[in-house]
Amino acid sequence: MSSKQGFSRRQFVSSAISTAAASCLPIGRDLFTDLATPNSGTREIAQDSPVVLTTTPSWRDQGILNLTKSPYAKLRNVPAHAVMIENGFWAQRREVNVNKSIPSMGKLLEANGRMDNFRRLIGKSPAAQRGPVYSDSDVYKWMEAAGFVLQSGERPELRTAVDKIAKDVVGAQQPNGYLNTYFVREHAAERMEPKTQEWGHELYNMGHFLQGATAYYRATGDRTLLNAGIRFVNDFLLSDFGPGPDKKPLYSGHPEMELALVELYRMTGDRRHLDLAGYLLAGDSRIHVKRPWDDVYHFCGTPFTSRTHLEGHAVRAMYACCGAADYYLETGDPAYWKTLDVLWKDLVTSQMYVTGGVGARSDGEAFGDPFELPNARAYGESCAAIGNMMWNWRMLAATGEAKFADVIERALYNGINSGMSLDGTLYCYRNPLAFDPSHGDKIRNDWYDTTCCPPNLERTLASLPGYFYSTSGDGIYLHLFDNSELDWHLESGGGLKVRQRTNYPWDGSVEIVLTPAEPTEFTFFLRIPGWTDSAQVGVNGKAVTGATSGQYLPIRRRWSAGDVIRVQFNMTPQLLEANAQIAENNGRVAVQRGPLVYCLEQIDQPEGVALKDVALSLGPKSGAQFQEEFQKELLGGIIVLRHAGADYGEAAEHGLLYFRYSNEARKSKPLSLTFIPYYAWANRTATPMQVWTPISKT
Amino acid sequence: MSSKQGFSRRQFVSSAISTAAASCLPIGRDLFTDLATPNSGTREIAQDSPVVLTTTPSWRDQGILNLTKSPYAKLRNVPAHAVMIENGFWAQRREVNVNKSIPSMGKLLEANGRMDNFRRLIGKSPAAQRGPVYSDSDVYKWMEAAGFVLQSGERPELRTAVDKIAKDVVGAQQPNGYLNTYFVREHAAERMEPKTQEWGHELYNMGHFLQGATAYYRATGDRTLLNAGIRFVNDFLLSDFGPGPDKKPLYSGHPEMELALVELYRMTGDRRHLDLAGYLLAGDSRIHVKRPWDDVYHFCGTPFTSRTHLEGHAVRAMYACCGAADYYLETGDPAYWKTLDVLWKDLVTSQMYVTGGVGARSDGEAFGDPFELPNARAYGESCAAIGNMMWNWRMLAATGEAKFADVIERALYNGINSGMSLDGTLYCYRNPLAFDPSHGDKIRNDWYDTTCCPPNLERTLASLPGYFYSTSGDGIYLHLFDNSELDWHLESGGGLKVRQRTNYPWDGSVEIVLTPAEPTEFTFFLRIPGWTDSAQVGVNGKAVTGATSGQYLPIRRRWSAGDVIRVQFNMTPQLLEANAQIAENNGRVAVQRGPLVYCLEQIDQPEGVALKDVALSLGPKSGAQFQEEFQKELLGGIIVLRHAGADYGEAAEHGLLYFRYSNEARKSKPLSLTFIPYYAWANRTATPMQVWTPISKT
Repeated sequence: MSSKQGFSRRQFVSSAISTAAASCLPIGRDLFTDLATPNSGTREIAQDSPVVLTTTPSWRDQGILNLTKSPYAKLRNVPAHAVMIENGFWAQRREVNVNKSIPSMGKLLEANGRMDNFRRLIGKSPAAQRGPVYSDSDVYKWMEAAGFVLQSGERPELRTAVDKIAKDVVGAQQPNGYLNTYFVREHAAERMEPKTQEWGHELYNMGHFLQGATAYYRATGDRTLLNAGIRFVNDFLLSDFGPGPDKKPLYSGHPEMELALVELYRMTGDRRHLDLAGYLLAGDSRIHVKRPWDDVYHFCGTPFTSRTHLEGHAVRAMYACCGAADYYLETGDPAYWKTLDVLWKDLVTSQMYVTGGVGARSDGEAFGDPFELPNARAYGESCAAIGNMMWNWRMLAATGEAKFADVIERALYNGINSGMSLDGTLYCYRNPLAFDPSHGDKIRNDWYDTTCCPPNLERTLASLPGYFYSTSGDGIYLHLFDNSELDWHLESGGGLKVRQRTNYPWDGSVEIVLTPAEPTEFTFFLRIPGWTDSAQVGVNGKAVTGATSGQYLPIRRRWSAGDVIRVQFNMTPQLLEANAQIAENNGRVAVQRGPLVYCLEQIDQPEGVALKDVALSLGPKSGAQFQEEFQKELLGGIIVLRHAGADYGEAAEHGLLYFRYSNEARKSKPLSLTFIPYYAWANRTATPMQVWTPISKT
Repeated sequence: MSSKQGFSRRQFVSSAISTAAASCLPIGRDLFTDLATPNSGTREIAQDSPVVLTTTPSWRDQGILNLTKSPYAKLRNVPAHAVMIENGFWAQRREVNVNKSIPSMGKLLEANGRMDNFRRLIGKSPAAQRGPVYSDSDVYKWMEAAGFVLQSGERPELRTAVDKIAKDVVGAQQPNGYLNTYFVREHAAERMEPKTQEWGHELYNMGHFLQGATAYYRATGDRTLLNAGIRFVNDFLLSDFGPGPDKKPLYSGHPEMELALVELYRMTGDRRHLDLAGYLLAGDSRIHVKRPWDDVYHFCGTPFTSRTHLEGHAVRAMYACCGAADYYLETGDPAYWKTLDVLWKDLVTSQMYVTGGVGARSDGEAFGDPFELPNARAYGESCAAIGNMMWNWRMLAATGEAKFADVIERALYNGINSGMSLDGTLYCYRNPLAFDPSHGDKIRNDWYDTTCCPPNLERTLASLPGYFYSTSGDGIYLHLFDNSELDWHLESGGGLKVRQRTNYPWDGSVEIVLTPAEPTEFTFFLRIPGWTDSAQVGVNGKAVTGATSGQYLPIRRRWSAGDVIRVQFNMTPQLLEANAQIAENNGRVAVQRGPLVYCLEQIDQPEGVALKDVALSLGPKSGAQFQEEFQKELLGGIIVLRHAGADYGEAAEHGLLYFRYSNEARKSKPLSLTFIPYYAWANRTATPMQVWTPISKT
């Protein structure tokens, strides 16, 4: 969304509703009124299976997760439409997402036959099936992205596009509820066979369908897609599959359905949906995968609560953790929490990149051994970083602990944000922390035959408003900083607006203006990021003590309209070291400023200097400090950091692979190194890049 | 061979001959006399295809490579039987090889159906085919190992075992010359199909068959196996396959046949054999692999001379380089030399481990990008290190340049020698440079379903005498140091014995006694290893100047019986650094003493110390030196090295993944670190190991 265009989000919402109304779709009516009368639009999409959906809150006011009734959620989500992100860091990225990425990805999905896959099943396309078995999910994620855009009231015309493909999708559903464009016709016999369950992504596709349908429902109130998903679950799955001797076993294959089923349960209240998620998470011993390693790779099949560490396919593991956390939020099962806690500690003490990315190995797109975090060879799939954010969002909801928000922010600003080019048309599948184009890789591409990451990035950026705030019984939590306006209410019911004014992440000062509908006592939980070593906080000009890095500062008082919180985070660039067991990072440092991890691109260094030869000068005499400069025209406008460095390009050992150790300083020349934010790398000419830079103490 | 048992190699040879004679096999007669009358033994093995083999030198006196007539060989091989390795470092390893490894591997090949694969084809076994498509090659490599043992006159009873399986192998050959136990019967239709050529290892198997047959022929004069190989090449391959519109194309798939064909050419003089090797090396554009990456992986299919760097499957690449070097030795084609030179520089400047191992990635068992040399994740397949040694042996023959011998020695003492356990019954497939058993790997195993490495290690140790010396028109080259006696002759014809007395590699002094049959002027090329920084050389007590590290010292004089060369290499332990682009090794050093790379095993460090927490103390005040101690009972008798170190196990940042950089020294405790030779690692309890150790300058 561009605030340059001068219209407000509210106008967008009105516009979306009127457009929808014009096409006779049953939006604009809450399910409060819908319950007695099932959707009765004039559209061709089937409107049967009128399962009663939850009424609290209405479809319009459900957040990313509808935790309203979740007994083990400490925090509850705020709906995406309640937060308007205004001109600033994320508005710029979201504008590109809405105006470039989502439309161009829609065209690419179309051009690559992903839409036709549905149409051929309803006689509207003669084309053969195209793409891998999980191709349906890419369409669904794209629909979910559009759903979130519509929730924010932006680009109402997207609805027409979604409606068009939604009609074909729902039309392709089998009479028994099954929906998939691959395991049909010549592949119908393979449907839900054990081997297909392992590798066929049928439940994975449906999980994404449910997520897409949910986002669309929460934007429009239109249950068409959601009903189709419920039919798949109720009519197809629950009737024939599940525990018990009369049912066939299920194997998740690629976890995703678990988290979707719990969210479905939050809408339907149908305990079977929650139980099915629990069943998938526990694994059914009746399905044995061929090789024991496959349960590791798939991160399913064995009881989730028996897991002791992160391993296998990183996206699968992250989505499984999401599903397990969702399951915990509803059941409070302590065995789940214990496992989630163990896995989370494993994540942050041995498996996560400084960018918030996860997954060390290209081989299997997988977690490596503890501390196996290679830079150039890093996989760090965009989807896995997104999964990491989604998992931590659930952990945060369960606890209200800021350490989870720290991971969200780290992944979002770095390992996720890097995944989409600044112009919104190219995507990273891998997000390495070092790169040399001479090795032949092309890191940003407009299309992948496995195009999971691009629409995943799109749905994430589109859903961002839903991650800014949460509520609790005590008050409200502020998680993310950016120019924005919240228009919501406390759990006690009182209306509350919160306006943020900031130049974050370029600047560490944030002004937060609260406007409760009437003076009310509650706690404002202000997140003090883990990366800052000092934060000054004041309310109405009066200092507030107790701000602690990596915790929420609870400010409890009777808030009145116009109360102002001013916070100033120290954003001095920091040098980070890595645990010595990450061998590649020994003797190297990463640069971080605020939430942004920085990197060196060779293109920014003095001409003739090769990135492989440089070091950051940190000798006792160097007295070097970072110089900051905001460059408006560079890479969408960034603060570049400059620091004294050394160029070892002419050291004698230059061309040798191994040589005698010497205690003496090697020949080097001083130079000035220029760092840019990691997320902005590879947006110009292909050039070497690195996050971790050697230090020189001479 | 154990000199403890008090018998000499000569006795072995006599014994082998008499045993063979007793079984009525046509050994003991040179082909000088054989030529007119094809082998006419009473054995059941077919003796047809009496292709004339070269007569210079006789089968008995052909070295590992028969370079006698190779126009572009500067050095010529000395036959294995001419060098008796006596009690010392390699005798100990070779004794284990002969008495434990080869017999136990023979039993395992039998137990795992690899011999029955042949027997089923001649109605002697009802068992089904077992093992991967390349399983025949493992039998052949085992036969080659036995062949080299027999060449050295050791374990003559091995001949009975080889004859037994050889009979079944030759019996399984098809009437048209084809020999393979997989692509028969139900798989016969797949035989030599393009896809099979890519993945079926038919030529690879035959290449190893030819190598095994050659080693056996050179031990016994028995042409049975070799004739079968020649039938495969002449009757099966050459009649239907090769260039030209009337022939079907060939694709090497896994290079190996190339080197075997050139060696066959050296015996048959049949130009078609050399040309077929050249044809395989050039690739036939009529066979297109499915994915362009496969030509990279297979290291064949595209012209060898178009290669610019090492890539793809490391063993394939090394064997291809062997074949190309062999082809160069016969043809002198400058395009081949240019490519070999480029690839060799790539090897030693960006792709080789300090152990001489090659192949960074488990994924594809492949070379990585330049400087991608991870330690714990190293693949470093034993076969690849062996291929590296074989390639460098050919480069050395072409040039007489010691830099190639340096690579041979590095690979042999470290990355190859590590591949077989000290007791000779367990083998490494991977040879990583760091290891943590808690990650679940078991690094030494008695059997792999893909058991390429064990018999490869066995044939290499068995062939070792053939690598000690070479001759040239100018004299003789000494490459490897160990107690040994050469009994051979100069190229001019005069007899020459050379006796080495040394405790190498534990001690740097070597006494070399020359006994020419009569006083003769020639050059003794004494290898001064690249790792030494000083070498004192004297002849008959008089200093010889000009010794240069990494070069052969040419000592030209009129040599008489009893002339003594004494050489003293400085064996002070050295610390090696790696090129800064090997990120994992930044701030770390490797320890090398003489040709031996050392490592730390946690088991040798003070109790309670974790290897991950230690550093080598090299501060300006430490003044630390290595302490050496020979421990006779430890790991077969080794020199251990001790050095001051620091234990950072209680540093504050211990449990953190990332933390703020500090210029201040971290908390550490002093300790003494104990290093052992790398080749001896993982021969006790599973314990962490590392070659590259961080340094502490505090």
